[in-house]
Amino acid sequence: MTSRTCLSVILAAGEGTRMKSALPKVLHPIAGLPIVAHVAKAVHSAGGSDIALVVGRGADAVRDAVQSVVSHVTVHEQTERLGTAHAVLAARDAIARGYDDILVVFGDTPLIETAALDRARAKLARGADVVVMGFRPDNPTGYGRLIEKDGKLIAIREDKDASDDEKKIGFCNGGLMALRGDSALQLLDKVTNANAKGEYYLTDVVEIGNALGKSVIAIDIAVDNVIGINTRVELAEAEAIWQNRKRRAMMLAGVSMQAPETVFFAHDTLIEADAMLEPHIVFGPGVSVATGAVIHAFSHLEWAKVGPGANVGPFARLRPGADLAANAKVGNFVEVKNTRIGVGAKVSHLTYLGDATVGADANIGAGTITCNYDGYNKALTEIGAGAFIGSNTSLVAPVSVGDNAYVASGSVITQNVPADALAFGRAHQVNKEGRAVQLRAGYAAQKKARKAAE
Amino acid sequence: MTSRTCLSVILAAGEGTRMKSALPKVLHPIAGLPIVAHVAKAVHSAGGSDIALVVGRGADAVRDAVQSVVSHVTVHEQTERLGTAHAVLAARDAIARGYDDILVVFGDTPLIETAALDRARAKLARGADVVVMGFRPDNPTGYGRLIEKDGKLIAIREDKDASDDEKKIGFCNGGLMALRGDSALQLLDKVTNANAKGEYYLTDVVEIGNALGKSVIAIDIAVDNVIGINTRVELAEAEAIWQNRKRRAMMLAGVSMQAPETVFFAHDTLIEADAMLEPHIVFGPGVSVATGAVIHAFSHLEWAKVGPGANVGPFARLRPGADLAANAKVGNFVEVKNTRIGVGAKVSHLTYLGDATVGADANIGAGTITCNYDGYNKALTEIGAGAFIGSNTSLVAPVSVGDNAYVASGSVITQNVPADALAFGRAHQVNKEGRAVQLRAGYAAQKKARKAAE
Amino acid sequence: MTSRTCLSVILAAGEGTRMKSALPKVLHPIAGLPIVAHVAKAVHSAGGSDIALVVGRGADAVRDAVQSVVSHVTVHEQTERLGTAHAVLAARDAIARGYDDILVVFGDTPLIETAALDRARAKLARGADVVVMGFRPDNPTGYGRLIEKDGKLIAIREDKDASDDEKKIGFCNGGLMALRGDSALQLLDKVTNANAKGEYYLTDVVEIGNALGKSVIAIDIAVDNVIGINTRVELAEAEAIWQNRKRRAMMLAGVSMQAPETVFFAHDTLIEADAMLEPHIVFGPGVSVATGAVIHAFSHLEWAKVGPGANVGPFARLRPGADLAANAKVGNFVEVKNTRIGVGAKVSHLTYLGDATVGADANIGAGTITCNYDGYNKALTEIGAGAFIGSNTSLVAPVSVGDNAYVASGSVITQNVPADALAFGRAHQVNKEGRAVQLRAGYAAQKKARKAAE
Repeated sequence: MTSRTCLSVILAAGEGTRMKSALPKVLHPIAGLPIVAHVAKAVHSAGGSDIALVVGRGADAVRDAVQSVVSHVTVHEQTERLGTAHAVLAARDAIARGYDDILVVFGDTPLIETAALDRARAKLARGADVVVMGFRPDNPTGYGRLIEKDGKLIAIREDKDASDDEKKIGFCNGGLMALRGDSALQLLDKVTNANAKGEYYLTDVVEIGNALGKSVIAIDIAVDNVIGINTRVELAEAEAIWQNRKRRAMMLAGVSMQAPETVFFAHDTLIEADAMLEPHIVFGPGVSVATGAVIHAFSHLEWAKVGPGANVGPFARLRPGADLAANAKVGNFVEVKNTRIGVGAKVSHLTYLGDATVGADANIGAGTITCNYDGYNKALTEIGAGAFIGSNTSLVAPVSVGDNAYVASGSVITQNVPADALAFGRAHQVNKEGRAVQLRAGYAAQKKARKAAE
Repeated sequence: MTSRTCLSVILAAGEGTRMKSALPKVLHPIAGLPIVAHVAKAVHSAGGSDIALVVGRGADAVRDAVQSVVSHVTVHEQTERLGTAHAVLAARDAIARGYDDILVVFGDTPLIETAALDRARAKLARGADVVVMGFRPDNPTGYGRLIEKDGKLIAIREDKDASDDEKKIGFCNGGLMALRGDSALQLLDKVTNANAKGEYYLTDVVEIGNALGKSVIAIDIAVDNVIGINTRVELAEAEAIWQNRKRRAMMLAGVSMQAPETVFFAHDTLIEADAMLEPHIVFGPGVSVATGAVIHAFSHLEWAKVGPGANVGPFARLRPGADLAANAKVGNFVEVKNTRIGVGAKVSHLTYLGDATVGADANIGAGTITCNYDGYNKALTEIGAGAFIGSNTSLVAPVSVGDNAYVASGSVITQNVPADALAFGRAHQVNKEGRAVQLRAGYAAQKKARKAAE
Repeated sequence: MTSRTCLSVILAAGEGTRMKSALPKVLHPIAGLPIVAHVAKAVHSAGGSDIALVVGRGADAVRDAVQSVVSHVTVHEQTERLGTAHAVLAARDAIARGYDDILVVFGDTPLIETAALDRARAKLARGADVVVMGFRPDNPTGYGRLIEKDGKLIAIREDKDASDDEKKIGFCNGGLMALRGDSALQLLDKVTNANAKGEYYLTDVVEIGNALGKSVIAIDIAVDNVIGINTRVELAEAEAIWQNRKRRAMMLAGVSMQAPETVFFAHDTLIEADAMLEPHIVFGPGVSVATGAVIHAFSHLEWAKVGPGANVGPFARLRPGADLAANAKVGNFVEVKNTRIGVGAKVSHLTYLGDATVGADANIGAGTITCNYDGYNKALTEIGAGAFIGSNTSLVAPVSVGDNAYVASGSVITQNVPADALAFGRAHQVNKEGRAVQLRAGYAAQKKARKAAE
């Protein structure tokens, strides 16, 4: 890593009307994180942790999104939309602080990778004054072409202004740029709006730099790095690319997935090697899965921790605060919230555990429900190690079941159960011989009467 | 829209043996609607609402499928399979009624779009007599080529009869056609079966029309519009195209989807802008979702209504008659059928509500079950506004719980609960100290005996 | 099928370090079956049922995987890694037994199809001594090229040694080979390690065979047949190809799938024609589904049998031993394990049935749970034909409910219920008028106190 200082200017003032949303464009999420925060993460990893955020509407929310991942952020309002150079100059105060490097990125290009930014900064370190990040699309039509000569970038030609020869150039302007800090303002201040639209274009610094004898170059970055988001279709496409990158990286690191295309990660999901993921899984934010764990199909996890060798799903929902120790099991149609499940404990079916602790090797029967909410307060349920909770039991919190205690099926438990005790709270069974025949006759008569009345 | 009258002839007599199905081919569904009904919808939108349906086996069921979307349908049986012109002429009576335009489409090309049919009809309106709908496949080999000259379509050449030069033509016959009503029968009646297979080919009207000095032209429509279904593989491919069209249209209109490729819509699904859909959702028919609503992953909805700001899933099943008011919540492992859930009411987990009403801001605890069926009759459960139903409660219908009433956890409610009352119906808990130790010893002994016996 | 005897040499000694796994590479599963077992199935189907398995680490586990599908297996340890010919010669004893044909395949190419192996063996039967299986990749760069002359394969040229003309050859070495048994050892023994890496290459038999005047030829097999697995990314890619093959074959055989890309089969899944599969289904091993059955979305099945016309899901989990008779129904949030469900019986919602039998036309209410486990023993529940189990019932096994018996909602059933009897075991309901008001006031006060204390 370089010791050079770096400011990242993130341009995030676009209106984003094509998103058709009340939410500012750069706040739409990819992998659960706002677009602009992805950009902030990338520049942060590339050493550009001082961020000058150029915003329009929704300034506070956009700043909050960026600050959720990077702390040094100054906000600069771009009151009018007069072009990209104008937008960058909204951050003039920040640029003037005297950084070695200036990265100029867009708040709506969330797939930019640190590696590309690193390469741009390395060029500055080796003497370049302006580094334009270019890419090679399948079809360059419509993009500005990067005109190079002897390794220098001499111009960016808009598609409509390009000659036939220039149109054959496949190397295009990605918009992102790295500028040497000590000459950045000098170049930017020379940009004029003497063009058809009357806007100040950042791309003009290429010709201005060349005219001043500066070193202006282009680097070639992967196409997906420069994808901008303007519609929800593009948002979904970017999400797909992000997910594919993550899936691939995870598999190469030793995570098994039978059908990676059906597994969706959040920006911060952590999965250790030799964990196994079945098809159809959704990870919300804040999830870690340890080695040897298996997440079965149709599971949904958020803010949850899955210990080594633990077994989750199918059809499991781990909500915030679910914390499964080693070899714990959470099975089908089970919801776990704010609950620690001890080593080897089993919660196999049709259960809701909320605000609880479950001791090691406890067994929670099917249909168990912690009644943790009275309409006003959330209360705790403590289940001891080795305890056995019979099926269809209601545990009315606050309540505790001691170590190795045994609760009979179908009980409503409202008082604490001591360790080693047997608890039950259920009515006696009564069989009425032959009565089902009468009952059915009665119900059938009702049905007949109902049909007749209709 | 034109004021010209239009008849749509839908050819739906094909056997479809490659489907390997007891169901007639054109009745297999895409997005929950029979193939042939998709065709009917498209011609209906293009103004061709009078439909002449040419059928073979399963005539009644095919007619019913078409009439489910368009009302004016006459059915014409094609008793022998003697070619496409012969099939069209099975509808001679309908054609003879004197329409301005005749659209000839196939019952097994469900992806035809209204826009393509509109363009064909517009050509008729501007004087064309015959309009052939062509397409440009990636590889034209095997398709009949459209031979044009001076903007006129002069012939359709079968691949096997094409010269080397003609084989280079990429513009192919899609089979669909629009005919000027006042000359349609004149052209069709001139088609002969003087060919190798002894069939009457609709394509012959091109050369017949030219010979009579009619205006015969071709228009270029998108490849996917002419896809015909012959196997369940092709059916699935068409479904995928349909779903992608729908997803794209929804996203452009402002619906967010993290993973559109995992969300499946029905033909009539309505989702408002700024609704959010997580991955892995299946919409059956009859569903509407209002703005601001969130449908979480692994949800399954059919004939259900989700109000503004409502929150559904993950793992929710909304069955017919589920009707969620604004800001209502239906959470994990919850099934709702024929039930109105009031504004802000919460049904968060492991619950079955059938034939019920839930008042505003009521809270339904985990494990609540409406016992709405006695084996003969379905009965109603009414839950008042602000009521609190404790967890693991059975509500034995018909029964009502009044406004702001409170039902204790684990109760079986068989009688009405007045407003503001507290109801419980559960046994007292008994703890037997130390008895779990004996119980376990007994179970362990049983286990040992069982193992010994094995 | 030929009557020629055949030995299959499966080379499975590779380390597979790039899998980053404690599990040997060839034991990673595709469709639930270890990679190497897929290879064994393919050679078995091609008549090569005597298998010589050349292994490195994990020999026992690899042998077990192969023996799970084919019984005649000899294991040959390759103690050093000195090249592919060296690996084949580790099985010298097996080859020397005197087979007509020798198939040499790799343990990590699970997508090899029987048809390709059949074609190779057919060439041996018609006089070839060496048959190399080649393929035509989109981009041949990096692969060894197959140099043919007059229908003979005269050399395999490594990419780095190829001339410019040879580099244009698109036909590449897939590695798999068929050898005539009576000359195989003669050729293999002539392979030397006189090359840069000092390894014994199997490909050398091509030039050796030609030098000895043997008939050496190449056949062209599909690209996907030769895909080798080295990383979990490649494993997932191979799984995707396998699944697509299976989906396609099933659809062509008459199984309907709305979204085949979201349905995952095991290696042994059996689905009859005119069964219908909704999106998002996972089949574990051992599942059969009969004609007319519908599997709804979000279902997970393993070692289960679904009878004709049965209805499963959405959100159903069929575990080992689930056995649904004709027209049985298992609905949402239902788990079934080791349970026979009779003709027309219904288990519609939120239920766990384990170790049970359910008679024909019985109706199991929502929230029913078989309490089949006491912490030590699993016990049986028998439910008779026509029985009605009210909602939220706990059936504490061992217990039986007779034919046409009726169990009231919310009961805990611990004793047998005779046929035609009505059973209930639940507390009486008590309503306390106005008490909810006090209760809420108390809870609200607690909440206030709690907030104050925070």
